Amino acid sequence: MSVKFAVLGHGVVGSGVVELFYKNRKSIEKRAGTEMDIKYILDLRDFPDSPYQDKFTKDFNDIVNDDEVTSVAECMGGVEPAFTFVKACLEKGKSVSTSNKELVAEKGDILLRTAKEHNCNFFFEASVGGAIPIIRPLHKCLAANDISKVAGILNGTTNFILTKMYNDGMSFPEALALAQDLGYAEKDPTADIEGHDACRKICIISSLVFGRHVYPKDVYTKGISHIELCDVAAADVLGHAIKLIASVRKTDGGKILPAVMPMLVPYESIMSGVSDVFNAVLVFGDGIDQAMFYGRGAGKLPTASAVMGDVIEAVKHKVTVFSQSWESADDNSFVDSIDNLTARWYFRLPLGSEAPEGSYEHENGISFITEDELSFRAASEKAEKLGAKAFMPVFE
Amino acid sequence: MSVKFAVLGHGVVGSGVVELFYKNRKSIEKRAGTEMDIKYILDLRDFPDSPYQDKFTKDFNDIVNDDEVTSVAECMGGVEPAFTFVKACLEKGKSVSTSNKELVAEKGDILLRTAKEHNCNFFFEASVGGAIPIIRPLHKCLAANDISKVAGILNGTTNFILTKMYNDGMSFPEALALAQDLGYAEKDPTADIEGHDACRKICIISSLVFGRHVYPKDVYTKGISHIELCDVAAADVLGHAIKLIASVRKTDGGKILPAVMPMLVPYESIMSGVSDVFNAVLVFGDGIDQAMFYGRGAGKLPTASAVMGDVIEAVKHKVTVFSQSWESADDNSFVDSIDNLTARWYFRLPLGSEAPEGSYEHENGISFITEDELSFRAASEKAEKLGAKAFMPVFE
Repeated sequence: MSVKFAVLGHGVVGSGVVELFYKNRKSIEKRAGTEMDIKYILDLRDFPDSPYQDKFTKDFNDIVNDDEVTSVAECMGGVEPAFTFVKACLEKGKSVSTSNKELVAEKGDILLRTAKEHNCNFFFEASVGGAIPIIRPLHKCLAANDISKVAGILNGTTNFILTKMYNDGMSFPEALALAQDLGYAEKDPTADIEGHDACRKICIISSLVFGRHVYPKDVYTKGISHIELCDVAAADVLGHAIKLIASVRKTDGGKILPAVMPMLVPYESIMSGVSDVFNAVLVFGDGIDQAMFYGRGAGKLPTASAVMGDVIEAVKHKVTVFSQSWESADDNSFVDSIDNLTARWYFRLPLGSEAPEGSYEHENGISFITEDELSFRAASEKAEKLGAKAFMPVFE
Repeated sequence: MSVKFAVLGHGVVGSGVVELFYKNRKSIEKRAGTEMDIKYILDLRDFPDSPYQDKFTKDFNDIVNDDEVTSVAECMGGVEPAFTFVKACLEKGKSVSTSNKELVAEKGDILLRTAKEHNCNFFFEASVGGAIPIIRPLHKCLAANDISKVAGILNGTTNFILTKMYNDGMSFPEALALAQDLGYAEKDPTADIEGHDACRKICIISSLVFGRHVYPKDVYTKGISHIELCDVAAADVLGHAIKLIASVRKTDGGKILPAVMPMLVPYESIMSGVSDVFNAVLVFGDGIDQAMFYGRGAGKLPTASAVMGDVIEAVKHKVTVFSQSWESADDNSFVDSIDNLTARWYFRLPLGSEAPEGSYEHENGISFITEDELSFRAASEKAEKLGAKAFMPVFE
C-alpha cells in the first residue's frame, strides 16, 4: 500500500519538500518502509510550469476530507490560516509536520494536545534551526539528562550581518543592505534584526525542554540594529565575537529564564566560530556536559530536508510520540525576570572616562569586560551611572 | 508495571549508567512513559561500597534467564564475551543498548539481524561520539538526504594531544605523557594514537549510512604518532590546524572510501575549532548541505547518557527499528582503494629544496600546500621524488 501525503504551501520550503521527495524518493521510501507519494499541493497561486500540475489544489477541503491522505507537510508560514488547517488535519487523525515557527511558538500546546487526542503526531523539527537536527535529539538522545541550559545562534540573517561587520568591517546598514541583495534578509527585516525570529525559536526549545508553553511576548528580546562597528572591533581585541544569542536557563525556584540578546562569545567557545548564515545550538546537561548542533538554519532544501524527515517519522509512527510534547501555561509565572540574568558584562564608556584595568581605548571610547558577574539590573544601573554608550553580556 | 533492565559491566561507563539512572530517575521514567528499575549489574569484581549491593551478580545466566528483564545495557567493552552475551540477550527478545564500538564494528551486522529475528532492538548511539547524538540523527532526522560524505574528529585522546602541541608547543611525546597523567590516554595508547579507535567508529558510521558492513581491517588507518611539532606550527602559518580525521565518502561506481588520517583543516572550517577532548562529526547531504554534531566523545557520564538514552528508546519501542540497520558484506569490493582519495596536499621538503610559490620556510624545512588536487597515489609518488619529510591531505 502506498502512503499519500499533502504539502500545504508551494513557496520556498513547500516547493523544496516536493523537489527533495521526488529526487530521493527511492531511499525515502526505503527508510519509511513503504511506498509514498504526494497527492495534493495546496496553494492559491497557479504554477503552470510545474511538472506536478495534477496535484495542485486551491481548496483545503480536498485534502482534509480525503481519507487516503494520512500525513501533511505544512509550509505556509504565519499563524492563520495555518492554525485552522493544521488543527483540522490533526482532528481527522492526519499527522502534520511543519516548518512554521510562528505557529509552533504561538499554538504549539494546543496542536500537540489535539494530536494526542486523535492519536496522530504534530512534528516541528524544521521550525528551529532549519536543517539542523535539534528537536528530536533534545527529546530522544538527551532524554537521560537534566538539561540546565540551551543557547544558540538561531537566526542566519543576523549572523550573516554580524559576520560581515566582523570580517569586512562593514557598518550595520551596509551589511543589512548586502543581506537584502543576497536574499538573506527580507525587504522589511524587522523580524530578523530585532530578534523576533530567534525569540520564537527559543520559545519552542524552552517549551520542549522545560515542559510548559512559553510565549514570545514573555521573553526579553533585543536585536542587533544598535550594534556599532567599533564594538565589534573592540570585542575582537578583547578576545570575543559578538553574536545574537537566544538562550534559556534554569533559575532559582523552578523558574526558567529565556532571553534573546547580542552577547560577546569568547574565542575559546566553539560558538564563536559559527559564521555567515549558519546556526548552532549548544545544550548543557548533567550527563553530556555540553553538545552542539550546527548547520544551515534556513533555505529551501535544508528546511525541506527537516520537514521531509518528520514526514518519514510520521509515516513510521502509528501512535502519538508523547514525549515530544508540552503542557499549556495558564500564566507566565515560571518565566523569570530578565533582571535576574547574571553575567560578566562588556561596557563601552565615553573617551575620558576612568579606565579599569585591562581596558581597550580606541577612537570611539573605552571598552572593557567586568571581572565579576552582575545582574542585568545591576549592569543597567552601572551603564546609566557611567554614561555607557554600549553594554552587552558575555556568553559563558 | 515497572520495566526492569540489567547493566553488563560496572567499569567507567557501566557505573555511570547506574549513577545517571538513579540521579535522573523521575524524568527518565516520565520520558520512557513507565516506571523503571535496574534489576542486575553484572561484574566479576566485588563492589563492597556500592549502595546497590543487592543488584550485583557474577553469573550472566541470572540475567538472560530472567523474563522480567526486557532491556540490557552492555558496557563491558571488547568483542568477547560481550558478543556471546549480547547475542544471547537478543535471542531471548531482550533489547540491548551498547557503548562497545569494537563489538559494533566487528559484529554489528550479525547482532542487528539477530535483533530483527527476535523482534527487539540493538542500539549503539554511545559507540560513536560518546555523548554526541549522531547515530539517531543520521538515520532519522537526515533520512530525506542523499548523504555524500561524513567526516569527524572521533577520538578525544588524539585531539587533546594535537591541541596541546598546537596551543602549548608540546612535542608529541610530551603531550602523550600529559594525556596519560590526566587519564585521557591508556598506559598502552596504541589504539588511540594509531587511529584504530577512530577507525572502528568510522566503520560504524559507514555501515549505517551506506547500508553494508565495513570492517576495520579494510580501512586505511594512519595515526598521529609521526606528527612533528614543526608541521603543526607550519600548518598554523598556512592557515590550518592538524586534526586526526576519520571520514567516508561516496566514490565512483557505487563504492565508498573510508579512511583515518591526520589532515590539515582550514581555519574557515568549524571543524578547526574542535579542541581538547571534544569530538565532532560533519555530515554532507544534498538537502542539508552540511551539519555538524559536537560534544564529549568519551567519559563516564557523557557515554552513560547516550547508553541511557538508548535504553529509554528500547523501552518505548516494542518493535524493531528496521531503518537503524545494515546488511552483512560478503566481500570488501565496495570499499574503494585509498589510492583514489583525492585532495590538496601539505608537503614539508628538506631545507634547500626548490620552494613553490606561497611556501613557508622554517628551520625544519619548506612547507607548502599544493594548489591542485592529487590522488593519494600521486601524492605519495611526489613525496618520494621530492624527498618530503612529511605530507598530509587538506580537509575540504
